[in-house]
Amino acid sequence: MSTRPAPSAPLQNDPESPIMTVHTASPAAPTSSPTAAVLGAHPQATTDADARKAAATDRSGYIPSTLPDGVVVARGVDDVVEALRLAQAHGVPVVPRGAGTGLAAGASAHEGEIVLDVSRMNRILAIDPVEMTAIVEPGVINAEVNAAAAQHGLFYAPDPASTAICSIGGNIATNAGGMWCAKYGVTRESVLGLVIVLADGRILRTGRKTIKGVTGYDLNALFIGSEGTLGVVVEATLRLRPKPVRTETLAAYFADIEAAGRAASAITAARIQPSILELMDGPTLEAVDLAEGTKHRELGGAFLLAQTDGYGAHLELDEIVQAISPYATSIHRAADAVEAEALVKARRDAIPALERLGRVSIGDIAVPRNRLAEAFTGLEDIAAQRGVRIFSVAHAADGNLHPMLVVDPHESITEGPAKAALGDMFHLAQRLGGTLTGEHGVGLLKREWVGEEIGETSRSLQQAIKGVIDPAGILNPGKAI
Amino acid sequence: MSTRPAPSAPLQNDPESPIMTVHTASPAAPTSSPTAAVLGAHPQATTDADARKAAATDRSGYIPSTLPDGVVVARGVDDVVEALRLAQAHGVPVVPRGAGTGLAAGASAHEGEIVLDVSRMNRILAIDPVEMTAIVEPGVINAEVNAAAAQHGLFYAPDPASTAICSIGGNIATNAGGMWCAKYGVTRESVLGLVIVLADGRILRTGRKTIKGVTGYDLNALFIGSEGTLGVVVEATLRLRPKPVRTETLAAYFADIEAAGRAASAITAARIQPSILELMDGPTLEAVDLAEGTKHRELGGAFLLAQTDGYGAHLELDEIVQAISPYATSIHRAADAVEAEALVKARRDAIPALERLGRVSIGDIAVPRNRLAEAFTGLEDIAAQRGVRIFSVAHAADGNLHPMLVVDPHESITEGPAKAALGDMFHLAQRLGGTLTGEHGVGLLKREWVGEEIGETSRSLQQAIKGVIDPAGILNPGKAI
Repeated sequence: MSTRPAPSAPLQNDPESPIMTVHTASPAAPTSSPTAAVLGAHPQATTDADARKAAATDRSGYIPSTLPDGVVVARGVDDVVEALRLAQAHGVPVVPRGAGTGLAAGASAHEGEIVLDVSRMNRILAIDPVEMTAIVEPGVINAEVNAAAAQHGLFYAPDPASTAICSIGGNIATNAGGMWCAKYGVTRESVLGLVIVLADGRILRTGRKTIKGVTGYDLNALFIGSEGTLGVVVEATLRLRPKPVRTETLAAYFADIEAAGRAASAITAARIQPSILELMDGPTLEAVDLAEGTKHRELGGAFLLAQTDGYGAHLELDEIVQAISPYATSIHRAADAVEAEALVKARRDAIPALERLGRVSIGDIAVPRNRLAEAFTGLEDIAAQRGVRIFSVAHAADGNLHPMLVVDPHESITEGPAKAALGDMFHLAQRLGGTLTGEHGVGLLKREWVGEEIGETSRSLQQAIKGVIDPAGILNPGKAI
Repeated sequence: MSTRPAPSAPLQNDPESPIMTVHTASPAAPTSSPTAAVLGAHPQATTDADARKAAATDRSGYIPSTLPDGVVVARGVDDVVEALRLAQAHGVPVVPRGAGTGLAAGASAHEGEIVLDVSRMNRILAIDPVEMTAIVEPGVINAEVNAAAAQHGLFYAPDPASTAICSIGGNIATNAGGMWCAKYGVTRESVLGLVIVLADGRILRTGRKTIKGVTGYDLNALFIGSEGTLGVVVEATLRLRPKPVRTETLAAYFADIEAAGRAASAITAARIQPSILELMDGPTLEAVDLAEGTKHRELGGAFLLAQTDGYGAHLELDEIVQAISPYATSIHRAADAVEAEALVKARRDAIPALERLGRVSIGDIAVPRNRLAEAFTGLEDIAAQRGVRIFSVAHAADGNLHPMLVVDPHESITEGPAKAALGDMFHLAQRLGGTLTGEHGVGLLKREWVGEEIGETSRSLQQAIKGVIDPAGILNPGKAI
């Protein structure tokens, strides 16, 4: 349940980061165009080249070939309304942007588009400790919500690995998951209500303040996960939960990832509901060790992190030990919160560790839980066939794998072997009865496979819904559906 | 976790039930009309007067003044497709119907409409004990899913009080809740995917087989709770959960409902998460005693049922005892499963007991949890002012109250004092920051207040969405939005 403070500067502004090297043929902003009309009229707009570069992409590894024409840095709801009204009047595409930590290029922006940055709308407006809710602006960092909730014995369950740097607005846009989701649900299950600015500047309120409510259609769920294509979230009412009275944690090591996968299945078969169940393969352990000076790889070729919580957490962890013992080479039960946090940290360190090795493209397939072992084998086959490096971690309790492709910092992930491998991963997931994306979203990177997954009837309905909510099509065009 | 078998005959066919006395001026089915064209062409259609009477309303207490023109009793997906194609071609309104246990007149049907009855599509198609899912047809009774799941150490969490007689299709149509929802979520959180027949006969698949997945918009959630106005569910993939290893139950009695409400708030304040937390007021206890020969009312003027589950259920129940002791006049901790079931049964008996007293109209307001006591006081005021009898039960852990209006069997609930009291309840909920309906749906009975709750922007968007999914407007017109 621990949280880390947000870094002092947002990572997307880090000049050292290879993903910020945006290649562009036209760094100057246009002076006479629909976008210029919008940017000229909005008090919070900038056409500064650095601002445009910083707002051009996310942490997906995708590098746009052009820059957006400008950025509106919203300080409040009125700025968002004004930006969308102007954009609609001039027919200008708008890319909503939060902390820029997305992994599917959903917040990538190009020439002819403007970025609407809500990261400065970052206040926690209210915490109601009796009702167990928080009302927040979209730019609030996920970990900050948890830090504020912790003061009241509460927590906010959806915790992406990027908790220290990702913002609630982006979590809502992607229906983000995290490590606690198998037990506590994803973002959708923790967002009671939203205030949204529609493409035409109207304010829409979805959901409610109460835990339950079924008046009318579930627009709340429709907007959650819509990746900025239906509206811009300017406020959210979040559901907080009682912080578990007791938490127990273990890490287990295995000869290989298949053995670890069998151990995860044994936990499910024993009808245990861990609050965290995470797998990492040997290559990922090596990368973590290299970055952090730890020695995980010496202990095994795969790593399983398990946490239980509640009044009987210790008894439930006993059951996990019993279920996995036939498969594990060693099991390390945390003696206290400090040891537990060190084990959890190993998992949170995976992505930053891999980012040191090169440009990372993080896959996000989900498969039925009982097909995890097949998925790992399939990923090894893809790596061998395409000649790419794939590192794998997985939220084992809900069948969500993150195969991470690591390429040279100047190599592309949208063409060549990396792109082919991404397509292979989707077809692997599909063959196993799974899905293209468990929690990161479709963005720009996975859009070509969406139709194949959801089918023509669903896609045409989704496009029709987009058509009535954003008839001018200005919101994040080319993303998600 | 216990379940009761479904009764041998569906209640809506019970000739003894007062709610089945449908007054109608035109019992004969029309022979030349758009509905006659549909009914004449469909192999599973009937215009039998008894069938039309049985399909005319639900358990809301609403009595339609006319009968539907006929009923299509679907035996499979093809029958549903054929019914909707014919209806669309002839512009005939279709009222989808399951077990007929709805409480908002969402399945009520009138002259000029036909009923599409899916209650005979009642097979459990598959249970996957490893993946913890069930694939079912819409007519399967809720308790039957639980009985089948229990054989694999699993359970299906959404458990309406009507579990023994309500069907999964109706649960999905209303996004039904129940006693376990505060801990395990409502129907939406337990439905992974749907197969739906759209108004034009096309087959739509929503959701997926995996626990997580965010490809495209969340059409699954959009259809859940849409009360038959967007499509007809013909198959559902349900999420099952590990049956708790241990369950502990208590009942506590209090001098009055306000004291019981304060006890419920004390549980929340102590950061305990019970799996069941139910309140009943004194008049309801009297009705249960009268129907069942029990003696609850002698023990107090209000009743609180609490259940905890999990490895530490006994420890968590200890905490509940401590939290409520200052308020309770007596606390009865169940010694075993038989005693626990007797306590839970008292709550499940409430609605059947009240139905013996007269025609029952069950309110369904939800308020922020910390305003429960104010809600009870407000309901007492409404009863006094309108001169009606209101019996109250509540899902205390999620702030969902069921104030039950009981009127004379031949009195109307859609006009006079009962209707006025229903409006008062809505305004009470609104004043307390709550909602018109927590889990029963809007149906016909509450539609006039929907606009006031959700506002014009939301309502117009919802109607636009209805317009693109069912452009001819044939699906359950006049309901929900």
